[in-house]
Amino acid sequence: MSVYGASVTKLIEKFESLPGVGHKSAERMAFFLMRKSEDEVRDFAQAIYDARKQLKFCTVCQNMSDKDVCDICANASRSRSVICVVQEPKDVQAIERSREFDGTYHVLHGAISPMNGVGPDDIRIKELLARLNGDVNEIIIATNSDVEGEATAMYIARLIKPLGVKVTRIARGLPVGGDLEYADDVTLGAALQHRVEI
Amino acid sequence: MSVYGASVTKLIEKFESLPGVGHKSAERMAFFLMRKSEDEVRDFAQAIYDARKQLKFCTVCQNMSDKDVCDICANASRSRSVICVVQEPKDVQAIERSREFDGTYHVLHGAISPMNGVGPDDIRIKELLARLNGDVNEIIIATNSDVEGEATAMYIARLIKPLGVKVTRIARGLPVGGDLEYADDVTLGAALQHRVEI
Repeated sequence: MSVYGASVTKLIEKFESLPGVGHKSAERMAFFLMRKSEDEVRDFAQAIYDARKQLKFCTVCQNMSDKDVCDICANASRSRSVICVVQEPKDVQAIERSREFDGTYHVLHGAISPMNGVGPDDIRIKELLARLNGDVNEIIIATNSDVEGEATAMYIARLIKPLGVKVTRIARGLPVGGDLEYADDVTLGAALQHRVEI
Repeated sequence: MSVYGASVTKLIEKFESLPGVGHKSAERMAFFLMRKSEDEVRDFAQAIYDARKQLKFCTVCQNMSDKDVCDICANASRSRSVICVVQEPKDVQAIERSREFDGTYHVLHGAISPMNGVGPDDIRIKELLARLNGDVNEIIIATNSDVEGEATAMYIARLIKPLGVKVTRIARGLPVGGDLEYADDVTLGAALQHRVEI
């Protein structure tokens, strides 16, 4: 039963449909907006609709953008010879924050996961292959380190290696600042296996 | 720096302005919606705007409603002789869930808090006084058990008692199912003080 009236109840339900939002959080969000002026709330609703309506994917790297070619792909100072392959747009943001990469990206929008019915054709692998003209000499696969991410990395590597393009995988190892005794066995094993000379 | 384009970035900022939503959660919400169809997203945005536009306050109890008189106040089977005074609309929902109350409510929309510049005239106390015709014989004050809630309860009690209306306060004590050793001193003190004969 609701005591707030139909439209507020509907709004609470909508917020509850968002990931990570429970009933109490949804109520707090709805009440927060109900305290704002009608103009502020219109602005909020408009931002949601505009973002979806203006949503495009960069024709080069497939990242979310509001342009045909995103800022990174359009930036002449970024190297076109190295492409970093990631699962999601937020992974691009994460790697950009590290300031360690000056190449370009390719966003797959998912990972191969037969369990969830996601096959190679459901993510943007063919768009990646289409970018492999003679200029690209390294593909860095930065998919997640879980089963789906590893499977996707293996699949892409097997497709691209025969084309004579170098394929690398981001390193697994101890997190920087990480304590040895708290590392899990598999990570520690990977850290030993991929040790580098100092 | 953003890599998603201006409209998605604006949406993430809007979600981040909601209470209890950090940057990562806001990103997840925005990406979630960007995966939905344009129609679904329009529906979502519309729900927000409609709720605010249709927002009314019940002319009797001041609760949020989309009618002039809310369902509870319009319900003939609810007693008009007992009014339960709460701070927020969500408190009405909480008390309704207990199924222990069949009177009507009064929503103050806040509590007296000189620290935050909220005085008695900033919350809906005068609307409560206006309801005290001869039919009302008990006011149950169910404001929160913090400093502001207690101050508001005292203020209202002092206003209403001289009018010959019984004023009560919801009991403080150990939560049902609560463990004695984990109760704080003040709660335990209150529980002892308000002990009832069995």
